Amino acid sequence: MQDDWRGEMIGEFVGIRYARKSGKEADGMREIVALGRKVYLELAAPTEEDARGDRERILEALPREYGAVRMPLAVMRTLYPMCREADWRVTATLGWNGDAWEVLRVEPGDTARVQYGLAVDYGSTTLVMQVVDLATGEVVTQQSVFNAQIRYGEEILSRIFYTKDNSEHLAELQRVTAECFNELIAKCERASGIPRREYIAMTVGGNTTMIHFLLGIYPWPIFETPYAPVAKEPDFVRASELGIELPGYVYLYPAAANYLGGDVVSGLVAAEIDRSDELSVFIDIGTNGELVAGNSEFLLAGAGAAGPALEGGISKYGMRADTGAVDRVRICDGKLELHVIGEAAETRPCGICGSGIVDLLAELFLNGWVDSLGKFNPDASERIISVKNHLDENRTELAVCYAWASESAQGEDLVFTQTDVTEFIRTKAAAHTMVEYLIEEFGLQDADLARFYLAGAFGKFLDVESAVTIGMYPDLPRERFVMIGNASLLGAYEMLLDMRHLEDVKRILGKITYIQFGSAGDFVGKMHAAQFLPYTDLEQYPSVKARLAERRGGQTGMKDVCLTGD
Amino acid sequence: MQDDWRGEMIGEFVGIRYARKSGKEADGMREIVALGRKVYLELAAPTEEDARGDRERILEALPREYGAVRMPLAVMRTLYPMCREADWRVTATLGWNGDAWEVLRVEPGDTARVQYGLAVDYGSTTLVMQVVDLATGEVVTQQSVFNAQIRYGEEILSRIFYTKDNSEHLAELQRVTAECFNELIAKCERASGIPRREYIAMTVGGNTTMIHFLLGIYPWPIFETPYAPVAKEPDFVRASELGIELPGYVYLYPAAANYLGGDVVSGLVAAEIDRSDELSVFIDIGTNGELVAGNSEFLLAGAGAAGPALEGGISKYGMRADTGAVDRVRICDGKLELHVIGEAAETRPCGICGSGIVDLLAELFLNGWVDSLGKFNPDASERIISVKNHLDENRTELAVCYAWASESAQGEDLVFTQTDVTEFIRTKAAAHTMVEYLIEEFGLQDADLARFYLAGAFGKFLDVESAVTIGMYPDLPRERFVMIGNASLLGAYEMLLDMRHLEDVKRILGKITYIQFGSAGDFVGKMHAAQFLPYTDLEQYPSVKARLAERRGGQTGMKDVCLTGD
Repeated sequence: MQDDWRGEMIGEFVGIRYARKSGKEADGMREIVALGRKVYLELAAPTEEDARGDRERILEALPREYGAVRMPLAVMRTLYPMCREADWRVTATLGWNGDAWEVLRVEPGDTARVQYGLAVDYGSTTLVMQVVDLATGEVVTQQSVFNAQIRYGEEILSRIFYTKDNSEHLAELQRVTAECFNELIAKCERASGIPRREYIAMTVGGNTTMIHFLLGIYPWPIFETPYAPVAKEPDFVRASELGIELPGYVYLYPAAANYLGGDVVSGLVAAEIDRSDELSVFIDIGTNGELVAGNSEFLLAGAGAAGPALEGGISKYGMRADTGAVDRVRICDGKLELHVIGEAAETRPCGICGSGIVDLLAELFLNGWVDSLGKFNPDASERIISVKNHLDENRTELAVCYAWASESAQGEDLVFTQTDVTEFIRTKAAAHTMVEYLIEEFGLQDADLARFYLAGAFGKFLDVESAVTIGMYPDLPRERFVMIGNASLLGAYEMLLDMRHLEDVKRILGKITYIQFGSAGDFVGKMHAAQFLPYTDLEQYPSVKARLAERRGGQTGMKDVCLTGD
Repeated sequence: MQDDWRGEMIGEFVGIRYARKSGKEADGMREIVALGRKVYLELAAPTEEDARGDRERILEALPREYGAVRMPLAVMRTLYPMCREADWRVTATLGWNGDAWEVLRVEPGDTARVQYGLAVDYGSTTLVMQVVDLATGEVVTQQSVFNAQIRYGEEILSRIFYTKDNSEHLAELQRVTAECFNELIAKCERASGIPRREYIAMTVGGNTTMIHFLLGIYPWPIFETPYAPVAKEPDFVRASELGIELPGYVYLYPAAANYLGGDVVSGLVAAEIDRSDELSVFIDIGTNGELVAGNSEFLLAGAGAAGPALEGGISKYGMRADTGAVDRVRICDGKLELHVIGEAAETRPCGICGSGIVDLLAELFLNGWVDSLGKFNPDASERIISVKNHLDENRTELAVCYAWASESAQGEDLVFTQTDVTEFIRTKAAAHTMVEYLIEEFGLQDADLARFYLAGAFGKFLDVESAVTIGMYPDLPRERFVMIGNASLLGAYEMLLDMRHLEDVKRILGKITYIQFGSAGDFVGKMHAAQFLPYTDLEQYPSVKARLAERRGGQTGMKDVCLTGD
């Protein structure tokens, strides 16, 4: 997709650059303090005067920084005659097991240049994995697969029901999950040429239910009142215990609360909002919206079902951001311009996805095709028409794309109805209100926000201007918006390279407070106030006010242009 | 056996008494700080306000003294729905894994009163196991089995050869060893009525080769120059990794040096010689003799092959301390009195064991039947006769028991020859010299010894008076001798109940210095000087000198009395 279709991205997050371990953190480069290490050792051969055991010879030769290193029995068993045959030149592979460093392997010769880790975003739909060079921080390859759990239901809830009170089904889902990880690891091996035995650490960001499935633990209590999971902080688990074919340990980001999973905590580690004295907001909106507001003092978190709207689920023509989806919309001189996702230059639209809807609504509003209540103005365009539904009621709708130019299966116009608009406004009002609510809890206002982190693919592709225009995001100076992308993956990457983040996680879990929006008294009232475009009080949206004044001065033309391509 | 045949035992070691954990160590009772624990927890049921995970609910409810407790995946998987069904009243079983406390099991209700551990002396011939109540320190039962490795050779060396360069044979020996442990555990279950799942910790004292076999690690390098083992300090290993059917961890006492194994270190922990400012000696003599001299400043250790003499291996009629063995001897009014090991009152002797030989030699010397060079005096008794061997050479021998009174297979007299005497004197000289050598390294003399710890069954049954009389032990005031019995088992018991001994082990390993007697320059010269009864310089043996004067005043009678019974 052309990220620059709308011009430059605003404040895109490029991540932290890592330097080889050197003790210095100059030039903005961070020291690598990886969760997996290889240490080459040239050991003194035993003599009658120095008849220490091979195990002790190795452990005592390790740098003191590793503390009391553990060597499991399986590794002890490999030492003889290997160390002697290698003439006491060996490489020890170390992994952090949560308490201590552990020797994962000892092998002949110097193999210390080959050390990689895996960072994983383990989503309910997709698993994304990066092979990371633990010596340089370089991402060697990034691969993804669909979550194999999908065969038990697209919705998480159907997967949960499948395992309810059924240990065999639970074990089956665990196995399928582990196989999915193994498949992804195999993909990484093929893409990178680096065998899995060299992936000596793995970090995973995933939501609470996903983590329960991977662990083979019943997720049911997460969904039953009082919503207490079985394991909120599983920490480090040996990969082999999970059925994952890797030599070392897997770090599973803990959940901050039931609905605020390890994927969000991972994102918070990446965004570091708790490191600044100024207030920031971290927001990850999909089917569920999770958001966290905070500073170095404390963190407030909330989550809410944003509903299916943002994934195109409100309209008959709504769809996911996939081939054939209208993902960007502009009204220019009264003409509706569309951008369609697709490889081919002439891909025709068959639906509209979330970012397209946000764009559409913003443009409709700026051009006076809908008013601040979201009501269509039939006078604004010939595309806005009144039709009778099957109950013989009049309804107003917008022909986004006429039948002749669309892939619409029914050979119909691709339309967006008055009901679609109203529902979407409700969704954006929820998003707005959650943010507003949290900021007010800090005794602050939108304008005090130093950073507004937008996580997730959705946050990345959504047009910030449009989202501000409809009042979904606050009207901040645009450089304060930071598209952090796949924050869960980024946090996994960060943890892999800098285990000092384990302390950050502890700190974050320690100071985060979880708010149940549903039970917050004035939440519904605030929601109503937010069901305007952009907001009841336009003074809170000065940039939108200015654009309105500017745009409405222009003329409304009628020619359609359908832009396609990628 | 009647321990009081010779009157009271001298300074017998009764072990340390343990008190239930109370924080107080009054009345000589030590606080129990066991390697395994059970903690009963009454947990708050989850609410929407307190929606912590079950895992966290348990870990956070544990007393702070346990630090950051680990919960393995297998345990996490058992929590749901068990905790809910138990109404949040559960018992957590904790085991120390070497780094941290680990939850071995969570079970419904309060089972904290049932917590046991196993202390094991893992010898090359016999395994002895105690079931210890971890709440009271009580030994519930003590059981033993022959080491099943014996089918691969009575001698350790033949077992080692069997596994040399052969991973299948090594795995076989490991399996046989684990099965032997399991068999012994089953015996303990039957004897105590306590199932093995309640044995939540195990501690083992064994020599370096034995430990290698149990771990499934090649012991070969222990016997090949430069005699460096593969794992000198294996520390804590999960029982299941060893194939031992127990829920928790096994602590394997580390070796201080190649030939100074975990069994000796365990004994040192029990004897605590490194806790005193005064010099003590710890000695464990069998086929191999191991000894350690030291105080709170430092420890000197040595080991030497005592030869087969002490196990009766020098004489044609020598035998192990088994049924039919003469184990105690007295010459009273010129009559030879014998004590024979056996169930029946009329068991007749068929050989003589080590303690019998020491007694015999002492009595022969005190009564002038041999001189200080060990030469028989044919005038002293009609039992001393001169016979011709098959080379037609004259040899002198003592008829210990005439054919009519013995079980001797050949229908011969049970005899002890001049060669037997000479060989035994060489053995006792080696033992004496090793002790003398170590004491001199401290710049001290025999008389400065505060304690002389005699470990092992041999040390227990050997008569101290006789051993002093022949100059095998130094001529100390008798209350300084401490029969510590099975010190390896005792140290295992101590560790089970007081994990603070882990620090003692570190301290002992840190300050022990190992001496190779073979390469010590003046060792051979000292050995020669010790080949007298009791010693070249009789002034070093004042009590013997006094008894000599007293005894030789008496008369020598001729009537035989054969005492039997047990």
